[in-house]
Amino acid sequence: MSAAAVGAEERWARAALTGIVEPGDETTGRWLREHGPVELLRRLTATAPGAGEALSGAGEKRLAGCRNRADGVDVGRYLEAAAAVGGRLVCPGDEEWPSQLDDLGDARPVGLWVRGRPNLRMWALRSVAVVGARACTPYGAHMAAALGAGLAERGWVVASGAAYGVDGAAHRGVLAAGGATVAVLACGIDVVYPRGHAELIGRIAEQGLLVAELPPGSHPTPSRFVLRNRVIAALTRGTVVVEAEYRSGSLVTARSAQRLGRFTMGVPGPVTSGLSAGVHELLRGEGVLVTDAAEVVELVGEIGDLAPARRGPVLPKDLLDPVTVRVLEALPARAAADTRSVAREAGTTGDEALARLYELHSLGFVERRGDNWQLASSAVRAAHTRRGGA
Amino acid sequence: MSAAAVGAEERWARAALTGIVEPGDETTGRWLREHGPVELLRRLTATAPGAGEALSGAGEKRLAGCRNRADGVDVGRYLEAAAAVGGRLVCPGDEEWPSQLDDLGDARPVGLWVRGRPNLRMWALRSVAVVGARACTPYGAHMAAALGAGLAERGWVVASGAAYGVDGAAHRGVLAAGGATVAVLACGIDVVYPRGHAELIGRIAEQGLLVAELPPGSHPTPSRFVLRNRVIAALTRGTVVVEAEYRSGSLVTARSAQRLGRFTMGVPGPVTSGLSAGVHELLRGEGVLVTDAAEVVELVGEIGDLAPARRGPVLPKDLLDPVTVRVLEALPARAAADTRSVAREAGTTGDEALARLYELHSLGFVERRGDNWQLASSAVRAAHTRRGGA
Repeated sequence: MSAAAVGAEERWARAALTGIVEPGDETTGRWLREHGPVELLRRLTATAPGAGEALSGAGEKRLAGCRNRADGVDVGRYLEAAAAVGGRLVCPGDEEWPSQLDDLGDARPVGLWVRGRPNLRMWALRSVAVVGARACTPYGAHMAAALGAGLAERGWVVASGAAYGVDGAAHRGVLAAGGATVAVLACGIDVVYPRGHAELIGRIAEQGLLVAELPPGSHPTPSRFVLRNRVIAALTRGTVVVEAEYRSGSLVTARSAQRLGRFTMGVPGPVTSGLSAGVHELLRGEGVLVTDAAEVVELVGEIGDLAPARRGPVLPKDLLDPVTVRVLEALPARAAADTRSVAREAGTTGDEALARLYELHSLGFVERRGDNWQLASSAVRAAHTRRGGA
Repeated sequence: MSAAAVGAEERWARAALTGIVEPGDETTGRWLREHGPVELLRRLTATAPGAGEALSGAGEKRLAGCRNRADGVDVGRYLEAAAAVGGRLVCPGDEEWPSQLDDLGDARPVGLWVRGRPNLRMWALRSVAVVGARACTPYGAHMAAALGAGLAERGWVVASGAAYGVDGAAHRGVLAAGGATVAVLACGIDVVYPRGHAELIGRIAEQGLLVAELPPGSHPTPSRFVLRNRVIAALTRGTVVVEAEYRSGSLVTARSAQRLGRFTMGVPGPVTSGLSAGVHELLRGEGVLVTDAAEVVELVGEIGDLAPARRGPVLPKDLLDPVTVRVLEALPARAAADTRSVAREAGTTGDEALARLYELHSLGFVERRGDNWQLASSAVRAAHTRRGGA
């Protein structure tokens, strides 16, 4: 799918390290930066020569933990399990790597296991996180679904955590609107958690993207949920918290987003609801109150550096991959078309076409209008100019 | 009650002008500033000599309106009607005049008709407005009453407009907590509007204050409601909007407050409620989200210039009026006492004692702790110092 800019040895080492270092650990992140993945793996693998070499500022306990986990690492098994579900490892340096994750510094993921057709980097360009309480109220679920659908209708990709409550409602709202959604998991991309979301997670894998820092086969732990939140925050342009109690995990995501310079937003609710107390706390600080998707887009759509689409396509058409070009060319010149007819015209499936259309949207080639897609006016202008000049 | 610093002729003229100029009219306000009340009244009274003299920038229509109303003015009747309900006229320059109203510039009221025992200026020093929709939801009524009670319990005076819905709930919340409340009316202080609030307005007149720009006998009109709002905004340190539809009158109060440099606050609600839409609009702008009285006090209590109480009493005890001194001396030296026992000790009624206690609170002599009152620690210190020095 994506051109791999990272060599096989490094890729192998990063695959192994996803099973060895704890997500978000800045000390191992520093080692990785200092030594590179291949050398770090060598030093952490107890049985390898040179395993005793010093790693700067290594607590004995952390080192022992890494070496202990290194014993159990089986990269072949990871790759096999990933392949079995159509997954891949995306590494820093790959074309598909979302460069905004570099804002995490030494807490940047070693690599991301990704499952689904779309290009993660393209999708993440115009994405917003919608997160909130697992035990949400019907009001929270309603608002999450409405935001998900509204963002999808405006061509935005919605990221969340696939949990019960607000996360699930947001993903479902997007899917119901034929939109693009990314679930960032606290487990492996082949593990279904929570079990009750088996069908939802399956649909996201088909129509969207599943993303995980941990290797296939990994199960979630409480600390992994918290650390997963920083990836959601870093991946997106902003985080909307729908319902959250005081000191809840969703607020951790919101605060990570703030620290990373992303927008943090909150949907207010009744003061009499404990499930809105955390959101109100956020809104009394840096958070911006939002009541619908239009207000979210108004806010996050403003940043120029991540929003090249506003100024027209950022890539010449020649650099797009062939399937994406076919989808782009399937769009009528002056009218809008729905996903199904674009897919038919391009000779591909609906899910594939949708994945490409959101990529094209991120790149500024197309716009979404309700259920339909059309060429962006700037793209049409560019085409006319080229024709005029030829 | 209060020492009148304003001469009889000027007071008479201002009483007449409250029935002649339209509240908030900046042109007549300018005339008043340029000519003073006595001369302005002379020029506006059609039958008086010199009535034809020019008034700068006077539209014919405005002048005709004023002269028309001047024909119907009967100051004797105003004063009689005010006296019949125990009311008085408070003028700029009077000891009881709340000087923060001067922030209104040429839209400052000509005078205020006041009904009730307490000293308006003292009460307004530490006051907050709680306003909102007439057709509020049970949630809005609950929040207004809770805020009213909570502010009262923290020793703050609550101003509102005596309307149905949020206003009424706020006043009732205060009264139920034995607190201090001011109703700023869009009609005369002897007119009961709305009729359904006859009992409530009667209780406010007994235990709190009724305030009106218009003379006794005046009835409300839609424009008078809107213009009344600027008085509520100017009188208080901040305005809390509880429920408000888009473009509602409560938002007018909030915006007036903003323009006057007062705090504007809003209580969020469900996004799905049209009655919270106006509040959320406010909170997406300059408004600060508040969820309880403690958060309101935290915000409005910060301004030093209007909050001398934080630094201890601002007036020497000798300058207090005799009844207030009796109430102050009725407080035990090192313990707290409820209003009833303070009243008994001071040989006065409960309502009178309450009025004085809130004045003493505004001046920093006493503090309210739940249902009880005690000497402020700074006041105790000052007393000790005096004793030590004697």
